[in-house]
Amino acid sequence: MLAGELVLLKTSHRGKVREFIVKVCDDRMHTDFGVVDLSELMEKMPGDIVVSHKGQEFILQKPKMPDFFRHARRTGAPMMPKDIGMILAYTGVNRNDVVLDAGTGSGILAMYMGSIAKRVVTYEVREEFVDVARKNIESAGLYNVELRCGDIVEEIKKLDEKFDLITLDTQNTKDVIPHVKDVMYPGGFLATYSPFFEQTKDIRDAIEAAHFYDVMTIECTEREISFSPRGTRPSTTKVGHTGFITIARG
Amino acid sequence: MLAGELVLLKTSHRGKVREFIVKVCDDRMHTDFGVVDLSELMEKMPGDIVVSHKGQEFILQKPKMPDFFRHARRTGAPMMPKDIGMILAYTGVNRNDVVLDAGTGSGILAMYMGSIAKRVVTYEVREEFVDVARKNIESAGLYNVELRCGDIVEEIKKLDEKFDLITLDTQNTKDVIPHVKDVMYPGGFLATYSPFFEQTKDIRDAIEAAHFYDVMTIECTEREISFSPRGTRPSTTKVGHTGFITIARG
Amino acid sequence: MLAGELVLLKTSHRGKVREFIVKVCDDRMHTDFGVVDLSELMEKMPGDIVVSHKGQEFILQKPKMPDFFRHARRTGAPMMPKDIGMILAYTGVNRNDVVLDAGTGSGILAMYMGSIAKRVVTYEVREEFVDVARKNIESAGLYNVELRCGDIVEEIKKLDEKFDLITLDTQNTKDVIPHVKDVMYPGGFLATYSPFFEQTKDIRDAIEAAHFYDVMTIECTEREISFSPRGTRPSTTKVGHTGFITIARG
Amino acid sequence: MLAGELVLLKTSHRGKVREFIVKVCDDRMHTDFGVVDLSELMEKMPGDIVVSHKGQEFILQKPKMPDFFRHARRTGAPMMPKDIGMILAYTGVNRNDVVLDAGTGSGILAMYMGSIAKRVVTYEVREEFVDVARKNIESAGLYNVELRCGDIVEEIKKLDEKFDLITLDTQNTKDVIPHVKDVMYPGGFLATYSPFFEQTKDIRDAIEAAHFYDVMTIECTEREISFSPRGTRPSTTKVGHTGFITIARG
Repeated sequence: MLAGELVLLKTSHRGKVREFIVKVCDDRMHTDFGVVDLSELMEKMPGDIVVSHKGQEFILQKPKMPDFFRHARRTGAPMMPKDIGMILAYTGVNRNDVVLDAGTGSGILAMYMGSIAKRVVTYEVREEFVDVARKNIESAGLYNVELRCGDIVEEIKKLDEKFDLITLDTQNTKDVIPHVKDVMYPGGFLATYSPFFEQTKDIRDAIEAAHFYDVMTIECTEREISFSPRGTRPSTTKVGHTGFITIARG
Repeated sequence: MLAGELVLLKTSHRGKVREFIVKVCDDRMHTDFGVVDLSELMEKMPGDIVVSHKGQEFILQKPKMPDFFRHARRTGAPMMPKDIGMILAYTGVNRNDVVLDAGTGSGILAMYMGSIAKRVVTYEVREEFVDVARKNIESAGLYNVELRCGDIVEEIKKLDEKFDLITLDTQNTKDVIPHVKDVMYPGGFLATYSPFFEQTKDIRDAIEAAHFYDVMTIECTEREISFSPRGTRPSTTKVGHTGFITIARG
Repeated sequence: MLAGELVLLKTSHRGKVREFIVKVCDDRMHTDFGVVDLSELMEKMPGDIVVSHKGQEFILQKPKMPDFFRHARRTGAPMMPKDIGMILAYTGVNRNDVVLDAGTGSGILAMYMGSIAKRVVTYEVREEFVDVARKNIESAGLYNVELRCGDIVEEIKKLDEKFDLITLDTQNTKDVIPHVKDVMYPGGFLATYSPFFEQTKDIRDAIEAAHFYDVMTIECTEREISFSPRGTRPSTTKVGHTGFITIARG
Repeated sequence: MLAGELVLLKTSHRGKVREFIVKVCDDRMHTDFGVVDLSELMEKMPGDIVVSHKGQEFILQKPKMPDFFRHARRTGAPMMPKDIGMILAYTGVNRNDVVLDAGTGSGILAMYMGSIAKRVVTYEVREEFVDVARKNIESAGLYNVELRCGDIVEEIKKLDEKFDLITLDTQNTKDVIPHVKDVMYPGGFLATYSPFFEQTKDIRDAIEAAHFYDVMTIECTEREISFSPRGTRPSTTKVGHTGFITIARG
């Protein structure tokens, strides 16, 4: 692997999997299972094994978004994969797209977008959240995600760039919507996330006033199916409400 | 716009939206609303207007995956966006990934993957489906999707390439699974789609026998929320079962 | 069977089941399959066969609420069994209870209540609905259901009877709620049905203002599971939203 | 109130509601809040107040099935109200019906049936469960529920009584089904409960072999809607799978 590349190192201890995301470099990684010389990774490939000074074996893997999601520091309830999946599928965001995102929160949605799209600009108004998100984005090696501190309601008026997709998950989403078309390519997508009906209704009213089309609000529910020797059934482990996704086209 | 680029042309007639996906070229497009000279598109940008010889105005937009999905010819029930979204989110497929897909069907999942990933190889065993899928993939301008005719159970044994993600939606998925790890990067993802419980159970058994980890089977349900002057409520328009998504890690 | 008892007569014609609910009496029933002499039923028991003058055989059964539901004339969308079931289970309505119901609609909920409780008083404001409901209630032989024409908001103020359960499915439910406790036994139940969120929120506000306790609003979704030689899965036939059930205790 | 009647006594202590179900009699009830002389209840009505020797006030209410459900001792996961509601609504069990039930478990379903139907016979094979169920049924004052200890697969063959409704929630439901029609009135209902797909499939196969009709398997999901000053949304408190209800007609 090359210097600067990210690696997922996995090991098993007493039946429990422990994992670390590290950058290939000259440093050493100190763990409960001994010290790993990260420069050794340069001579390794995914699937190879690296051994700590205590003899503990770690397998090398390429980290993926679900790994970054699991390892991310959180500033609140992050958007869940099921809801991110709805936005990905219904906006069809692709390799050539430029995305505007707010509020960043812990950065999960911006990171997903950054792993797919050409460029992402994301705004977060709370400075303490910006710090956490910055670390998460850097840990994922996503240099195409530009994190800015500021209130999107004000900042969107100053932008002179156009975007293919605008994703909004903020308290004031309804106040941002009147300005969205000014920074959106014709045929671009708006995607909003809102936990409450009242908030979602305000968003729908703002979208209608701004003359978007193909407007749709959905709630996505996922259910795990459990397989065991006793039999197969939907999981008794439960899934509750997260939020409503509204998609509209400019 | 450049010659060869795809354009979505939208027009409105008697309150109904009509749309066409065309390639920028020297041809003419014949519609019920008159003839459009497609070479004119070279001097236009998304958001501009082009006029037919009958005076009908068409707006130019960049087509996106949801447009290709809507315009695709179908060979059967295609995988729905909600299910595609689950696969995208839980595998975190990204710009640098190489994807193996089977069976192609009408090509929708392969096209979504192709719009995100670096390269997609997709197998379809039924020749008549291959023709339809080829047209759909070409219409979407996805030159990184390689469509091959063949039975994945046999073909997977001959592959000497490695993939980050393998997606399977075939009758014989359970027979493919024993060979998946041979063509998967360590830490890669397997995602399968299966409508029935019995089939899903066979898939889970095969996955267990092949020692994958982080195995999860989910069913995703989406509900549209309807907003009207009478009030807000989950839609009485209904959504039924499509299939179960199983995700596993190699 | 005794004169006056209701009988469900079922017959099969060209693979299709046809059924009739009739009263044991001296009349004759004219059907496409010949004339049945209903006085013959007096010498029969459920499970026995009666034959029309054309030789068509009809089996005798005791009709139950699901039969009355299926045969009822409808004035609009009736409350569905799943929602009636929630009300039955969460209020625990029993043999000794006295129930107040409004609006009657086609009478389905009042009929279910009448088949269980000691006595039901039900109000419907629209005269044309009263006629339909009266026929449905009579067809079910429920002499303990008293149907009155009137606006429950006004009528509830005039009642000097107490009830164990009050069920409300009207446009003005929120205006009825302030008067409910005046006609409810302490520890009695209120159950309301409302299709929209806004309406349900108004109901909740009225319930809070009237100091009910153990308040709960639920939405019940039912899914049919389909079994076929191809496999088992949740039905692709779909179920949409009906309404929200709010239960409160006085 | 009359001697022998059941009363729900509710009191509030430090903001918490505490409640007791007692029989009107000559005894005294000892609580953390003082001693209540139960003979005083004979001069009281629902809604009246009785005072303990320490001055704590208790309000009198008529207990209902949801109270008995909450107070019942449990031998395992009891059938939930939502599932009981489906059985009540789809079988239309009424005041005149005679019900056969197995296995009793903690007796919840038998108690619901007993509060509605004329008579209930319920079988439980595990002696320790019989004791718990007997106490629960007695506490609810349901003298029309006859609890028998025995294996329903054997016992059903010995019955020479007919039933309107047979409810089965046992491990061996599929082995009981071949004998159900022998003890069911024509047009009667069978209702089964089974947590797993495999078990439900076996039940469906047995039902098909026994030539029932109008067969339907459903799963009922309930979702609580939460109302707060922040807004309205489906509850993030979660509801998981319980079981599948199969209804068939004899």
